[in-house]
Amino acid sequence: MLTLNDQVLDSFISILGSDHVLVESAALDLASQATYATQNRVRAILRPANAEEVSACLRLAQQLKMPLYPVSAGKNWGYGSRVPTGGDSLLLDLRRLNRIVDFCEEMGTVTVEAGVSFAQLEHFLEEQNSQRFMSAPGTTPSASVIGNALERGWGFGPYSDRFDFMCGMQVVLPQGEVVETGMERFSGSKSARFFRWGVGPWFDGMFTQSNLGVVTRMTIFLAPKPTHFISFLYRLNNLEHFAPLMDNLRELKMRGILRTNFKVQNFYRKLMDRGAYPWEEAGGQWCFTPEVEERKKKELAVGTWNGAGALYCWSDAQATAERELVEAAISPYLDSILFLDRDTLERKEQLRDEVKERTGYNLDSCLHRYYVNTRFIGVDKGLGVGGAYWRKRTPMPEVPDLDQDRVGFIWVDPILPFRGRDVQAATDLAGSIMSKHGFDPNIGLNCVTERSIFMTGAVIYDRDVAGDDERAMGCAQDLTQTMMKAGYTLGRLTTFNMNILEQADKGSLDLQRTIKDALDPNHILAPGRYEI
Amino acid sequence: MLTLNDQVLDSFISILGSDHVLVESAALDLASQATYATQNRVRAILRPANAEEVSACLRLAQQLKMPLYPVSAGKNWGYGSRVPTGGDSLLLDLRRLNRIVDFCEEMGTVTVEAGVSFAQLEHFLEEQNSQRFMSAPGTTPSASVIGNALERGWGFGPYSDRFDFMCGMQVVLPQGEVVETGMERFSGSKSARFFRWGVGPWFDGMFTQSNLGVVTRMTIFLAPKPTHFISFLYRLNNLEHFAPLMDNLRELKMRGILRTNFKVQNFYRKLMDRGAYPWEEAGGQWCFTPEVEERKKKELAVGTWNGAGALYCWSDAQATAERELVEAAISPYLDSILFLDRDTLERKEQLRDEVKERTGYNLDSCLHRYYVNTRFIGVDKGLGVGGAYWRKRTPMPEVPDLDQDRVGFIWVDPILPFRGRDVQAATDLAGSIMSKHGFDPNIGLNCVTERSIFMTGAVIYDRDVAGDDERAMGCAQDLTQTMMKAGYTLGRLTTFNMNILEQADKGSLDLQRTIKDALDPNHILAPGRYEI
Repeated sequence: MLTLNDQVLDSFISILGSDHVLVESAALDLASQATYATQNRVRAILRPANAEEVSACLRLAQQLKMPLYPVSAGKNWGYGSRVPTGGDSLLLDLRRLNRIVDFCEEMGTVTVEAGVSFAQLEHFLEEQNSQRFMSAPGTTPSASVIGNALERGWGFGPYSDRFDFMCGMQVVLPQGEVVETGMERFSGSKSARFFRWGVGPWFDGMFTQSNLGVVTRMTIFLAPKPTHFISFLYRLNNLEHFAPLMDNLRELKMRGILRTNFKVQNFYRKLMDRGAYPWEEAGGQWCFTPEVEERKKKELAVGTWNGAGALYCWSDAQATAERELVEAAISPYLDSILFLDRDTLERKEQLRDEVKERTGYNLDSCLHRYYVNTRFIGVDKGLGVGGAYWRKRTPMPEVPDLDQDRVGFIWVDPILPFRGRDVQAATDLAGSIMSKHGFDPNIGLNCVTERSIFMTGAVIYDRDVAGDDERAMGCAQDLTQTMMKAGYTLGRLTTFNMNILEQADKGSLDLQRTIKDALDPNHILAPGRYEI
Repeated sequence: MLTLNDQVLDSFISILGSDHVLVESAALDLASQATYATQNRVRAILRPANAEEVSACLRLAQQLKMPLYPVSAGKNWGYGSRVPTGGDSLLLDLRRLNRIVDFCEEMGTVTVEAGVSFAQLEHFLEEQNSQRFMSAPGTTPSASVIGNALERGWGFGPYSDRFDFMCGMQVVLPQGEVVETGMERFSGSKSARFFRWGVGPWFDGMFTQSNLGVVTRMTIFLAPKPTHFISFLYRLNNLEHFAPLMDNLRELKMRGILRTNFKVQNFYRKLMDRGAYPWEEAGGQWCFTPEVEERKKKELAVGTWNGAGALYCWSDAQATAERELVEAAISPYLDSILFLDRDTLERKEQLRDEVKERTGYNLDSCLHRYYVNTRFIGVDKGLGVGGAYWRKRTPMPEVPDLDQDRVGFIWVDPILPFRGRDVQAATDLAGSIMSKHGFDPNIGLNCVTERSIFMTGAVIYDRDVAGDDERAMGCAQDLTQTMMKAGYTLGRLTTFNMNILEQADKGSLDLQRTIKDALDPNHILAPGRYEI
């Protein structure tokens, strides 16, 4: 166990000042909470203000051989929040690195520090009246933009695969050296914030899902706001249509027509997005009876599978043409599809009843969620977090904090080939495991890249129900192992399933270990994080 | 100087067999030739057949502390060809690793070994009657696909930025360990060839423009062939229109309308692409008189700047809409623009005269180069290399070999922000330096990514003209230093300008050195390559 004496604390206080070294037990208790049961403790919270202070903390930690666990905003909900991976640690909390360092409207770039949140950046772009938008996250707007990119999280819009749309990092290495990457290496380089690869070996990838450095600054690319934005939502009940639908969606994505990440959600996941668990109707059961399922489907216009998407167009003719291409490719497989555009918004009074009758959808609610306040064009009203409270007996508070609110939430994220038969097989398999453990078999398919799908199976529960922490962990572990065995390798890990990396080839593990040893001889930076 | 005794050669022969260890002086002389003056010598050529033999060669080289210089197909023309960077070396020639390991039409992926050439892959896809296409290179079809990707070369089509469209590497580390990356790390992973990042730190970037490993296998993404392909070419003479044109091209690219890399070439570069130097007319002068320039412009329908582009569409309506968007955005700045599509091809007899009159372009030649046999949809007839023979007194042979043919050719490749005022300033500056040294100021702008341009200034000459090797080197060095000083940092280096890396920040150089020391303690793998 990590012991902290006054002398050690004083050394960190001499770097950061006493206001920024926290040892109050309430703060430490909360920082040691995740959305599932964990063991490791945060022993103190260090809040540096800049890269120099990050560097000084790392140098001192090396001297003391004392593990440091960095978080940007600390919102890694469902994966372990702020709880350290490799035993008790000091938390290196980067929230004070919250400056927006540079912004270029013309080129669509913004350079931010690690503590800048999605909400802060969205607000900044609104103030600038910017015609560029950030890729809004799938998670809470209070999450860090850089933290999400480093976890290889994704968002929405043409720049969904966040790590693919960043450019140039400032990284503090485990022994304290400050490193610039890409063209940022060259003082005065005019392409530093516009050209990703720089010259010479490109090291940025090694600092994602890793414990090889603390990223303190990064440039993010912003997409242009379309003049002719279209979104659409749809559902299907006939399972025979599911695999061909997915194949056609892949083809639309490969063709560059569907350029955003889009979700396809099963009945349970969609229901969660729509509100709280129907305790009365479902009688508290985890898996609904067929009767309840049918009733909820009809009542809320939810299908066995439910999707949405968006088109980014620049003229009426282009919008019409692309809409036709999407319609031709997918509508034969659907029970309902509803397109939303400026015309729909302007004529909503006339269209409301016809839409309801034809599609079952509530037009006002759809316009609100998918056209006006939509993550597809960078607007994030925090809708993504709502589903997490599905099993809580109390409603979601105004400022949700999943750790503090004792929400039970575990992500299991296998990567699937974007191919109908694989999606069918993998979702069947995952659903059966979740049901077997008595959890709602809720599944989301996040179609981030052209050839692969980031599937999310969420084990969602209430940590205040005795025994459910253990039951949930058992389900998540079984789901992890089953999906791995079937070849649906996980693409993002929780603090407790890093051990799947033991299944990786020896060469790659040796490579990682050699680099870790060279950069962090005392293994003080986030030991156990994405390593065996 | 590296000395090779019989015992050493025998050790390599025991690994590779005597047929695959070459020491004939003709072969070594040729391998020690580049397209400019070089000093270092290839002392023997090793030709392993697979990753295991590559590994054995590296292990032996470590024991002997003997430098090994790997090449895939060895066609790094204009950057140093096969000539080693850091003193005399053994050449590790990967041409025998020439298997196409896997191909998936449905998902648009192909897995190749390091020796597979663009021509081989193109031929393979033709045989398969594939509806997917590789990004055709800007260089010779005899170049290696993997070699080009590792140098972060680019091609044409929606997947132009080649390194951004690969997935999973097999790498032999300098001490001989074989490593898989991405999801290839997990035996049986179904997403190994479809999902780029894998799980955990992503190391692939560190093996590009580097000397940290020998990449022996890689998966390449293939783009879908459009059902409604459109290309276009244009030119402008009014220099006041140049900067706004470039800004509008960037916006079209950011909007996802122009998805391919496209070239914008100045008068000289365009002329080179069109054929040999007009010795008679130009009187042998490097820079033409205004009269000659005007005459050639008119005669060949070449402008001060000349561009081309392509649209990848899937319906008549989409094609029309996108064409209109391009036309509206750029034609106000142009002297001429010509669109080519299926209709143009079918009606070429009727259109020929009208096109000539309206645009000055020769329709048949344009159709041939930009619509039928076009790199925009993966067809490469080797047109890219023609310009290199511009200054030779002899015509390009049927199988061009720039090293053997003593073509003088040096690339200088600054990265520019994709912004009119920068492009204007950088091309003016580069042109003035090239003219000052008495070379044709030929410049190509390769619009590969949304925010940056890969500019190529080519110093092209005849190595058989006494003194021109020195003169060309002086020009290339001056151009390199001048562009660096102006902030237009180079994005790809020749064997002689790696020293610009000394201008990089200390932290990044230390990081690279630490990793090199850890992976290659004897510095035997390509010493001096993209390192100081």
